[in-house]
Amino acid sequence: MGIADKWYGTAAANFEQLDGGICAVPGVRAAGVAAGLKPSGALDVAVVDIGRPVDVAVLQTTNQVRAAPVEVTARHAADGRARAVVLNAGNANACTGPDGTAVAVDTATHAAQLLGCDATDVLVCSTGVIGRPLLADRDRLLAGVGEAIASAAATGIGADAAARAIMTTDTVPKSVGVRAADDEGSCTIAGFAKGSGMIAPAMATMLCVVVTDAPVAARILRPLVRQVVDQTFGRISVDGCQSTNDAVIVFASGGAERPPGISSFTHGLTAVLGELAEQIVRDGEGATKLVRLRVTGARSGTDAAALGHAIAGSALVRTAFAGGDPNWGRMLAAMGASSVPFEPDRVHVRFGPITVCRFGVGASFDPGQAEAVLAQPEIDATVDLGLGSAQATVLTCDLTHEYIAINAEYTT
Amino acid sequence: MGIADKWYGTAAANFEQLDGGICAVPGVRAAGVAAGLKPSGALDVAVVDIGRPVDVAVLQTTNQVRAAPVEVTARHAADGRARAVVLNAGNANACTGPDGTAVAVDTATHAAQLLGCDATDVLVCSTGVIGRPLLADRDRLLAGVGEAIASAAATGIGADAAARAIMTTDTVPKSVGVRAADDEGSCTIAGFAKGSGMIAPAMATMLCVVVTDAPVAARILRPLVRQVVDQTFGRISVDGCQSTNDAVIVFASGGAERPPGISSFTHGLTAVLGELAEQIVRDGEGATKLVRLRVTGARSGTDAAALGHAIAGSALVRTAFAGGDPNWGRMLAAMGASSVPFEPDRVHVRFGPITVCRFGVGASFDPGQAEAVLAQPEIDATVDLGLGSAQATVLTCDLTHEYIAINAEYTT
Repeated sequence: MGIADKWYGTAAANFEQLDGGICAVPGVRAAGVAAGLKPSGALDVAVVDIGRPVDVAVLQTTNQVRAAPVEVTARHAADGRARAVVLNAGNANACTGPDGTAVAVDTATHAAQLLGCDATDVLVCSTGVIGRPLLADRDRLLAGVGEAIASAAATGIGADAAARAIMTTDTVPKSVGVRAADDEGSCTIAGFAKGSGMIAPAMATMLCVVVTDAPVAARILRPLVRQVVDQTFGRISVDGCQSTNDAVIVFASGGAERPPGISSFTHGLTAVLGELAEQIVRDGEGATKLVRLRVTGARSGTDAAALGHAIAGSALVRTAFAGGDPNWGRMLAAMGASSVPFEPDRVHVRFGPITVCRFGVGASFDPGQAEAVLAQPEIDATVDLGLGSAQATVLTCDLTHEYIAINAEYTT
Repeated sequence: MGIADKWYGTAAANFEQLDGGICAVPGVRAAGVAAGLKPSGALDVAVVDIGRPVDVAVLQTTNQVRAAPVEVTARHAADGRARAVVLNAGNANACTGPDGTAVAVDTATHAAQLLGCDATDVLVCSTGVIGRPLLADRDRLLAGVGEAIASAAATGIGADAAARAIMTTDTVPKSVGVRAADDEGSCTIAGFAKGSGMIAPAMATMLCVVVTDAPVAARILRPLVRQVVDQTFGRISVDGCQSTNDAVIVFASGGAERPPGISSFTHGLTAVLGELAEQIVRDGEGATKLVRLRVTGARSGTDAAALGHAIAGSALVRTAFAGGDPNWGRMLAAMGASSVPFEPDRVHVRFGPITVCRFGVGASFDPGQAEAVLAQPEIDATVDLGLGSAQATVLTCDLTHEYIAINAEYTT
């Protein structure tokens, strides 16, 4: 299934998937280096440089506990302009007090000196363990920033290294690029993300950097990014846990000479963020199955999404998917515990093509067939409410032993 | 630690813990039999008979999906009077449509004929798999009800069998009895409960039957049970999942000739429900550790309880407890994602006597000491908000591999 079909059915715009990661956008340089923040010695500092200050929109965590880089980036992006972003893994620089803020500011300042721009044109992001002082690793981090800027390249290799450098419990880097074209013209949109655990609604909890060469002013880009994030990162759930460090950063360089219409651009951005969101769920901690929960027949899209999240948020539902168990009763129990009103005796539930619940009561079905559907690596589960015509899809994954193994000893 | 101390510090009333389970209350007969609803052949039908219609208060699930017995019990208890309750495990009789309602009504009617009372004086509860038709097992169930009523006895053996018959994934029966005495007199309060998974706030999700010989009219008993449940079953969490079948049923027979004051009775009821709530968390699916989350320094008790539940509801926090990992950052992240306002830089976190976070920033502590505290089967974790003087304690357990193993293949 092509990226365009997956996100639109019949696409309004013409899409072409691009190689080269974030560097598929002309003029973007990227790098990832190993600065020694991860005990494993893996890549842990990334830089993305657009080459000059451009329009930028930043959407950050709504968590009351905000990491130091979240605060610094909020200040630096307040004017809607930025040139570069520096990201590190291995330490979230959250709950680190004034020392943590100083390190985040130093990081931006140091990068700015090397790039030859204002410190406020550099954004910073961190991911990793919460509450571990980053001050002890300040020199290592700054040295890594220097090395990354020196080696930044407008190549797929640079882009891939940047995507790898922000991985924590991720097992694969997450990256995508598209060209969106229509009668008016075309633009490129590309980016990368990380996220595997602490993935919840209310903006999935992750870092994501995207660049486009479409000319979109920050004041237009901001609400547009919020709207697209609602439909993409806002529709995934791994463990319902929200982090202190989330950020989605979208730079718009304006380099495209004949850009497409705003509608085609929006579709392109939705495809890019949607694809990254799906990559995050696929790589959910311990996940072996991707589950597409479609809630149809709702009174509103908001209701449908809320019920989808209620189902996706149930540990019992997700362990049932892990076990390949057609336990639809847990889905109804999870929906019933939510505050969205529905009528249980109108509900139909299907796993793939197999109806397992009809009008709120168990339907007779072949257990072998149901188990075959639930043994697949991708499962479509549809809940029809029978109340209206609105719908929403929420992506989640199964809850397995491996999730426990990954998270039982993450800091130690 | 005695039951009184645990629930009150210095107790207002004088408590004595009683043997004999629910039959510690004079005149109560109980039984549990194997009717063939559980494939294992274990006990699965329980009866508790008070001997005559008495005052009763019933608190049921707030889930929008209500099992058939929940509806039937609501009708039968509407007049505040009942004589007996019939409970079955092995099938929740939820999402079973009109056939399910018919079986629930038949169960009450059959028991009433054998007991010689009105059908509306018999309450019914079911627990087990959701969405499996109970109609196929109707005859087995009714035969079991007959056998249970015939064998019901005012003995500890009968009480223990009843407590065992409602177990699903529970590994141990849950039962407690106390005598509460003060200057005015004394009464007995005793009961049993089941619950292990699908345990969430908004009334922990379980079945609980309690009898007291104190004379408490239904109109007084109802709000009192609600208030005590808020402070007990409302303060525990295993997996944050809420069921379709929950019920707390409290019968007040009035047999005590010189009862204690209402305050002493309330304390006694709190001790009984509190002890059963704690037994449920201790036996949480896959649990190896009991975690007492104390939130202090809150602006209100409601705030403190809500933040306690936010922490207890985090899969990441609970896996960290499983791994013995002092990962307090996940606790702050979980609190921050809640809607209760607090100031991160005023927060202190302690595991046992060890302060791991001071004013929202990591404190230096001996990791070996912290690991020793977190390796215990009971862990006290205290979060002080530094905002006020209110507090609340929420009980939860660690999230282990065993939880996944238990729930991945529960119906199959």
